[in-house]
Amino acid sequence: MHRINIAVIGSGDVTPESKEYQIAKEIGRLIAREGAIITCGGLGGVMKGVCQGAFEAKGEEAKTVGILPGENPEEANQFVNIPIPTGIGEARNAIIAAADSVIAIGGGSGTLSEIALAWKKGKLLLGWRGSGWSGELADKLIDARGRVNDFARDDIIMGFDTAQEAINIIKKFLPLNS
Amino acid sequence: MHRINIAVIGSGDVTPESKEYQIAKEIGRLIAREGAIITCGGLGGVMKGVCQGAFEAKGEEAKTVGILPGENPEEANQFVNIPIPTGIGEARNAIIAAADSVIAIGGGSGTLSEIALAWKKGKLLLGWRGSGWSGELADKLIDARGRVNDFARDDIIMGFDTAQEAINIIKKFLPLNS
Amino acid sequence: MHRINIAVIGSGDVTPESKEYQIAKEIGRLIAREGAIITCGGLGGVMKGVCQGAFEAKGEEAKTVGILPGENPEEANQFVNIPIPTGIGEARNAIIAAADSVIAIGGGSGTLSEIALAWKKGKLLLGWRGSGWSGELADKLIDARGRVNDFARDDIIMGFDTAQEAINIIKKFLPLNS
Amino acid sequence: MHRINIAVIGSGDVTPESKEYQIAKEIGRLIAREGAIITCGGLGGVMKGVCQGAFEAKGEEAKTVGILPGENPEEANQFVNIPIPTGIGEARNAIIAAADSVIAIGGGSGTLSEIALAWKKGKLLLGWRGSGWSGELADKLIDARGRVNDFARDDIIMGFDTAQEAINIIKKFLPLNS
Repeated sequence: MHRINIAVIGSGDVTPESKEYQIAKEIGRLIAREGAIITCGGLGGVMKGVCQGAFEAKGEEAKTVGILPGENPEEANQFVNIPIPTGIGEARNAIIAAADSVIAIGGGSGTLSEIALAWKKGKLLLGWRGSGWSGELADKLIDARGRVNDFARDDIIMGFDTAQEAINIIKKFLPLNS
Repeated sequence: MHRINIAVIGSGDVTPESKEYQIAKEIGRLIAREGAIITCGGLGGVMKGVCQGAFEAKGEEAKTVGILPGENPEEANQFVNIPIPTGIGEARNAIIAAADSVIAIGGGSGTLSEIALAWKKGKLLLGWRGSGWSGELADKLIDARGRVNDFARDDIIMGFDTAQEAINIIKKFLPLNS
Repeated sequence: MHRINIAVIGSGDVTPESKEYQIAKEIGRLIAREGAIITCGGLGGVMKGVCQGAFEAKGEEAKTVGILPGENPEEANQFVNIPIPTGIGEARNAIIAAADSVIAIGGGSGTLSEIALAWKKGKLLLGWRGSGWSGELADKLIDARGRVNDFARDDIIMGFDTAQEAINIIKKFLPLNS
Repeated sequence: MHRINIAVIGSGDVTPESKEYQIAKEIGRLIAREGAIITCGGLGGVMKGVCQGAFEAKGEEAKTVGILPGENPEEANQFVNIPIPTGIGEARNAIIAAADSVIAIGGGSGTLSEIALAWKKGKLLLGWRGSGWSGELADKLIDARGRVNDFARDDIIMGFDTAQEAINIIKKFLPLNS
């Protein structure tokens, strides 16, 4: 069994004081403690928050992967331990959406594209109820299409309010500690 | 000036009898008559409808491009004149969203990802009011982010009800006949 | 049966006076007359030559597709009738290599990457004997790996000296006029 | 300064007994001890060898990234600690070639495409003299094009015979321990 990989997505513009950044940081901390891989877009805002939380929990050993749109690893925020410059631009959103689970925190159009792709790929998909597109879509479904995997009656974007709730949902479906 | 390229996106599952297919066909006919390039995902449903319409208008000379997810050109519907097998899977949605203008007709999660990417790229974006995600988002904005290009007060997903309305909107902003 | 798609690849730097440009132009002319699709990287040098030849043969009706690395269709040379801005950078070379057949004319590292990818994908691969990487590899094989398709004892990079020879080789294996 | 990322590329077919596998394993061990990130294609042969070496040196903490062509993380060999399923097929070779440095060990057409792309991107590029395409190109240049970065008079594919030599070359140009 491979190590579980959780993508955390959201706006690149929110400040460290925002609720989105704070919850991303807390989620990063919790996922890193579980030993899972964290994938994100590697830039600022929510992407930076989740990496900062993971860094505070595990330092240089946190497995935070930044799937960057450009070719320059220096684009990555300073808490990304594993920058992956792709050079494929927004098409990299499809790679982020290929993680085992995707957690959305707020977000605009870029985040929405990742939510939609993760849904299409049948991923375990969670959305923070607090703001943005994750708030719009939390506890809903995107389309009625048969999902690739089987999350049974939970086949919606699973809404959550706190970081701990998000982790609990993931633990219910995926073997985080394997 | 390059020839204008218009992407038409929507569900791959709708039947030829559906309203979505019929409006896609009519839009394909009208765009082909204007001499513009039509880009789509190359598969069935709305993608097939738009290509059929273009084929009925211009036959083998219609510039219908099918940006296929797989490597096999035979995946393309029979009305695609220019199949482009990409082998990059869903990441090809980012290429479709890079057309000069994007017209959404209904659609589920795949279409939603393309709408979101086209918005992020600042494209002239139109949505049919009749069904699916184009219906949900028509006449709305996806986020307040500064758009790349400048479509002034019209910077929303421009809603339309008929094929002719869609073409009229595009003609207002883009030099279709160049 | 889909329309045959032939990629023509080579250096982006050669001038219109170069042998590479001249043979690309002649190949473009011949392929366009056969009604096949021409795919290239859409930029200058050999890519421009092949599009110019096709344009001289068929004008606006030539099916010349420029798979551009960037997001701006204006990057395309003026003879590309169908610019496809991808925004995926050098990764677009893998899409060019997915054509039904690939003809290499000279070329440096970018062309070499496309030759290698086309070989890996099992494409009908031709190389001009005159210069660059196509010259180095003409009449040779890249590796002993089982090819995906079956071109029997001809499973090498098929060398050629003139445009007409290249077309004759392709006609031997692919139904150009379908 | 970001952590240095070194891609190790080569045939996916060689057995654990082969010289290619053995040198890949030794290189993996040495890079992991330096604390650098190792990127590879995530599959078998040389890709497995380098990950095994890194795993033997640092266990679960080795930063071995497998950039997989498909969508299934289970495709990765068992020594990859960080599988990144991309779903973009051979186009993922362009991402592998975007590491800070690329070390080629033997290899066929897939490896050749990565060598060519890494050269085009101006990467610090090393080739094992022992076999395959790395052997063909070691101590040579691919084209005369101005490289993006500046490795001065060493702007060739730098040949090496032993794992230690490869690491010494990289240390001369890149701050491995930062």
